[in-house]
Amino acid sequence: MENDSFSIASINPPVKVLEWIGQAGDGFLRLLDQTRLPTETAFVDCREVKNVWDAIRRLVVRGAPAIGVAAGYGMVVAAQLAGEGESFLRDLGAYGDYLNSSRPTAVNLAWAVGRIMARAEKALAAGLAAPAVRAELLDEARGIQAEDEMMCARIGRYAVDLVRRCGGVLTHCNAGALATAGIGTATAGLYAAHAAGHRFRVYCDETRPLLQGSRLTAWELMQAGIETVVITDSAAAQVMREGRVQMVITGADRIAANGDTANKIGTYGLAIAAGRHGIPFYVAAPYSTFDLSVPDGERITIEHRDGREIADGFGRTTAPAGVQIYNPAFDVTPAELITAIITDRGIIQPVSEQAVRKVIARQPGGPGQLVVPP
Amino acid sequence: MENDSFSIASINPPVKVLEWIGQAGDGFLRLLDQTRLPTETAFVDCREVKNVWDAIRRLVVRGAPAIGVAAGYGMVVAAQLAGEGESFLRDLGAYGDYLNSSRPTAVNLAWAVGRIMARAEKALAAGLAAPAVRAELLDEARGIQAEDEMMCARIGRYAVDLVRRCGGVLTHCNAGALATAGIGTATAGLYAAHAAGHRFRVYCDETRPLLQGSRLTAWELMQAGIETVVITDSAAAQVMREGRVQMVITGADRIAANGDTANKIGTYGLAIAAGRHGIPFYVAAPYSTFDLSVPDGERITIEHRDGREIADGFGRTTAPAGVQIYNPAFDVTPAELITAIITDRGIIQPVSEQAVRKVIARQPGGPGQLVVPP
Repeated sequence: MENDSFSIASINPPVKVLEWIGQAGDGFLRLLDQTRLPTETAFVDCREVKNVWDAIRRLVVRGAPAIGVAAGYGMVVAAQLAGEGESFLRDLGAYGDYLNSSRPTAVNLAWAVGRIMARAEKALAAGLAAPAVRAELLDEARGIQAEDEMMCARIGRYAVDLVRRCGGVLTHCNAGALATAGIGTATAGLYAAHAAGHRFRVYCDETRPLLQGSRLTAWELMQAGIETVVITDSAAAQVMREGRVQMVITGADRIAANGDTANKIGTYGLAIAAGRHGIPFYVAAPYSTFDLSVPDGERITIEHRDGREIADGFGRTTAPAGVQIYNPAFDVTPAELITAIITDRGIIQPVSEQAVRKVIARQPGGPGQLVVPP
Repeated sequence: MENDSFSIASINPPVKVLEWIGQAGDGFLRLLDQTRLPTETAFVDCREVKNVWDAIRRLVVRGAPAIGVAAGYGMVVAAQLAGEGESFLRDLGAYGDYLNSSRPTAVNLAWAVGRIMARAEKALAAGLAAPAVRAELLDEARGIQAEDEMMCARIGRYAVDLVRRCGGVLTHCNAGALATAGIGTATAGLYAAHAAGHRFRVYCDETRPLLQGSRLTAWELMQAGIETVVITDSAAAQVMREGRVQMVITGADRIAANGDTANKIGTYGLAIAAGRHGIPFYVAAPYSTFDLSVPDGERITIEHRDGREIADGFGRTTAPAGVQIYNPAFDVTPAELITAIITDRGIIQPVSEQAVRKVIARQPGGPGQLVVPP
C-alpha cells in the first residue's frame, strides 16, 4: 500500500555524508569516510583546513555537489584559523585557494569557496566583529547544503512517478546520496518512491574499475531498506533480456547543449542495450551539470585514467606485466538514446537542444511541487 | 609485409598448456598452472590420477577441449597405476569414473575417457601385454591432442582472412590457446593472421567476474607478440564508437540448432553494441559445441554462480555485507546478432538453422585447406 501525499524535501538521506558539529567558532566538519565503504562506517573529523583538503583529495568525500558543500564548511574551519583584523580576509582567501587545489577540475568546489568569500567580504564591509562574521559564514555554508538538498528533492519529485511504474530499476556507478548532501540525483526518485510506499528492486552495476556501484550505491540503498542486487556491468543486457528491469537511470558528469551526456564508462553500452529492449533510459542531473557552451557530445573531452586502476584494483595484479591498458573514465551517450533527462528544473523529453534550453532557463519551482501525490 | 603461403597446422601455440613427458610406462602429464597466471608461469606435474582430478577441479587446466586432452593423458597415468591382468580394465574404468567426477558437466572429459577405455578394450582383446597396452593408450591420448590441434588450425584457416582486414579486433573471455591443445578457437584466426605477417591490435575485455580476458587472453596474446590492450567490459561500446575495432570475435559454450549462442556473460551486450556500430560479430567454435537437440537459445539453461565471485573475487570485499548478488555465468546471443559462426567444418553465414545443419554435417576438410594464401 502506498502512503498518502508527503513532501519529498522531508525525506532524510539514508546516510549523513557530512555534518557540521558545534558552533561557528569552535565546531568542526565531520565527513563519512567513503574510502572505507562498504565494509566499514568510519568518519573523518576536520578541525584543520588541511584535513578538508586531504579528504577531498583522497575521495573521502566525492561527487560534485557533496564536494561543494564540504568546501563551504571547510571555509568555516578556515575562518576559525584565519588571523584577526586586516589579515582575516587575506588568510581566508589563501585557505580558499588551497582548498581549490585539492581537485582542480571540480567546478562546485571553486563555486562554494567563492560564495563563502563573497559573504565574508559583505559581513566585514558591514562592520561585523570576527565571531559574528564566522556565524555568517556557517549560515552561508548551511545555505549551500540546504540548496543541494532541495536540488535533490526536486529531481526526486520529477522522477518519482517514473519509478512507481517499475518493479525493477537498473543504475550504474554512484549518483546517489553519497555524492550529494541530499537524496542524490539518479537515486532521488528511488528514495522518494520507497518513502511513498512503493516496493521495487534496484540492480546496481558494480561499475568497473572503481566499483562505485557495488561499494557505494548498493550500500546506501540498503541503508534505506531498498531491495538491492549487485551485478557485473556486463550482466546488464542479460538482466534486461530477462525482463527484470523496466527502467534504467544514471547520473551525468556533463551534458552538452543537444543533450548528449558524458557519464561513467559503461553508460553508453547500457543505453544501447536498453534501446534494444525498449526499456526507457533516463539521466538525472542538476542544471549545473549542463554545459550549454558545448554543442554536442563529440566536443566533450574524455578523461583517460591510469591503467593500474584496472590491473591492480583489488590488491592483486590481474593483468600481465607490461600489457597496454585503455582506461577511459567516461563515455558519451547520444541524446537519441536518452528517453528523458530529469533535472531540478523539470523533465527534458524528448531530448533536443530546444527542450534542453527551455527547461534549463526555468527558475526552479517552489516547494509546492515537492509533494508526492497519493 | 605479409609472408608467403604457409600451413596453419605448423603454427605453434604461444604456450604449452599440457605436455606428456617421458614414455607410456614411466612418464607423466605436465600442466601449465593457469590459476597462477598472469603473474607466474608455474607447472603442475601429475604422476597420480588424483593430481589430474585436482588440476581439472581447480581450473589449473580449463576450457572444454583442453580438459578432454588432459583427461586422455590422465588415463595414461591411470594405466601405470592399474593392476595387472584381469584387474587392469576394472581399475582403469574406476579411474575413468573418478576423473569424470572432477567436472561433471564437461562433455569432452567423459568423451576422452571413453575413447581411452575403448582403445584399452581393443588392445586387451588383441592379446597385447601391459607395456604394449600402455603404449597404445599414450598413442590414443596423443591422437586426441593432435585432433584438437587440427580443429584449432581449421578454425584459424576460416577466420584468418577476416582478421587480415582489420586493424583492431575485440574479444571477450578466453577462447584461446589456453583453452585448447592448439591455437585456440576465437584466437585461432588471430594467431594465423599474425603468423602471416599481418600486424593488428587486440582489445581484450577483462571479463568480470573471473577476469579470464585480462588474466589469460591478454597473457597468451602477448606471448605470441601480438599487440594487446586490456579494457573493462563496459568500455567495449566506447572502443567501438571510437572506431578502434573492425571485428568482434568470441568463443561459445553451447550453440543451439538455430545458431543462438550461449557464451560468457557479457557476450550478448557486446553483440548488441557491435550491431549498433555496424561492426561484424563473429563466434568461433568447433562442431562439438553445437547441440542440435536444442532448438533455440530460449531453451539453453543458464548456469548461475556464487555471488562471492563478484563480491570477494580478489582478496578484498567490494560489496556490502548481505547484499543480494545476481551472477549468471553465461548469456545468450540471438543468431540475428551474429554475422557468422566460424567452425572447423566451415563458416556458417548468414546464421540460420538450415546453414548450421548443412555445415555441421560436413566432414572436416583435409590438410590442403590449411594453407594461408599470400
